[in-house]
Amino acid sequence: MQKHFSLPDLLALEQRFRASLINSLGGFKSVNLVGTKNTNQQTNLSVFNSIVHIGANPPLVGMIVRPDSVERHTYENILETGYYTLNHLNASIYVNAHQTSARYPRSISEFEACNLSELYQDDFFAPYVKESNVQIGLELKEKIDIASNGTILLVGEIKHVYFPEFALQRDGFLNLESCESITCSGLDSYHRTQLISRLSYAKPTSWPDKVV
Amino acid sequence: MQKHFSLPDLLALEQRFRASLINSLGGFKSVNLVGTKNTNQQTNLSVFNSIVHIGANPPLVGMIVRPDSVERHTYENILETGYYTLNHLNASIYVNAHQTSARYPRSISEFEACNLSELYQDDFFAPYVKESNVQIGLELKEKIDIASNGTILLVGEIKHVYFPEFALQRDGFLNLESCESITCSGLDSYHRTQLISRLSYAKPTSWPDKVV
Repeated sequence: MQKHFSLPDLLALEQRFRASLINSLGGFKSVNLVGTKNTNQQTNLSVFNSIVHIGANPPLVGMIVRPDSVERHTYENILETGYYTLNHLNASIYVNAHQTSARYPRSISEFEACNLSELYQDDFFAPYVKESNVQIGLELKEKIDIASNGTILLVGEIKHVYFPEFALQRDGFLNLESCESITCSGLDSYHRTQLISRLSYAKPTSWPDKVV
Repeated sequence: MQKHFSLPDLLALEQRFRASLINSLGGFKSVNLVGTKNTNQQTNLSVFNSIVHIGANPPLVGMIVRPDSVERHTYENILETGYYTLNHLNASIYVNAHQTSARYPRSISEFEACNLSELYQDDFFAPYVKESNVQIGLELKEKIDIASNGTILLVGEIKHVYFPEFALQRDGFLNLESCESITCSGLDSYHRTQLISRLSYAKPTSWPDKVV
C-alpha cells in the first residue's frame, strides 16, 4: 500500500515524528564531522548531514546551518575565524561522530568528550579529525540567509584535501568505498554502501555503458 | 600513502579530472529525478545530486541548479510554473535516470527518451516518475543567488509525499532501503546501501545506543 501525506497532514504531525520523516525524504545524505576552533583556541566538532556540492571551479562546498541549534558553536567559530574542516565518517567512528550532536557546553571540546583526535596540517587554522580518511580544509566565502525558515547557507572554498592515494582513479573519481566513507539517512541512521556501477557520460544518441 | 591537494593544485588540474574529484569529495549524495512541465505541457526530467534538507517545519528541500548547464530546462520550468517533483532513484531505473543527463533538445521529453513514465497525482501540476518508490511534490518558495559561482539555490516546500506504507517506522523514520532508494558519488557512480545501525538521541551524559 502507498502512503500519502499532503502538506496539511505533515504540518499536523507530532514534531519529532515530522522531523524524522522530513529528514528521511531527501534520500541518503553526505555526512561529515565539521571541525572548528575559536580565537581562544577552544575547538569544536559537530556532525552535519546538510552538505551540498556547489561547484568545481572554484571548488566550493555548501552547508546548511541552524543558528538556534546545537550547531551554534560551529557556526559562531566559522564566522569568527573564517576556517573549518569537513571530515568523512567511517564505520569505526560513526558512534563517536553521532555523539558530537549532544548538547555539550561551550567550554567542552567534542574532540575530547567524544574520543576523536585533533589533527593540524599545513598550517591550517582549523582542526581535522585524525581518524577520518577524507579531510577537507575550507575557507568561508559566502553567508547566505534563507528567508523561508531562518537557516543559513555557508559557502566554503576548498583550500586543502587529503585522502588515501589508492582511492584516486585515473579520471579524478575518488573511490569513497575504499576510503571507508559511509552515508546516513534521516536523523540517526548510518549505512555502508556497495557499488552498483559507474556509468559513462550520457549522450542523446546512445545508452550509457557500465564503466566499472 | 596520503594524497594532498592544495587549492592551487586543484585549480591546475585538467577540467574534467577536477570536476570528477571535487564532486567526489563531499561524500555520498542524495540522487533524485526532478520532474517538471512548462505551460505548453512539455515535460522535462533531469537527474540531480545536489539536494539538501533545509527544514522540517515548514517542510523545505533545497536544490542547487546551474542555469548554464543541461539543467537549464528544469530550472526554466520551475521558474515558469512554480512546481516540480523529486523522485528517488532505485537500481531498476538508475541507468534510465543517468541517461536524462544527456543534452536532449527542449522539444524532446526525457520521460519518453529515457523510457520512464509520467504520473499525475492529486491534481498536482508537475509529473512524478511512476517507477520511483518515493515521490515528492514541491512548490518553489525561494530562489537564492550564490554569488561565488553564479549557481542558484532553489528552496521548495513539500506539498505531497508518497512512499510504500511498510517503509514508515513508528517514530517517523522512513526506511529508505526498503524503498530500494540508492545513493550516488562523484558524477556517475551509483551505490546500494546496507544499514550499519540507527543510534539513539545523543546526550552529554551517556553514549548512544544502537536502536536497530
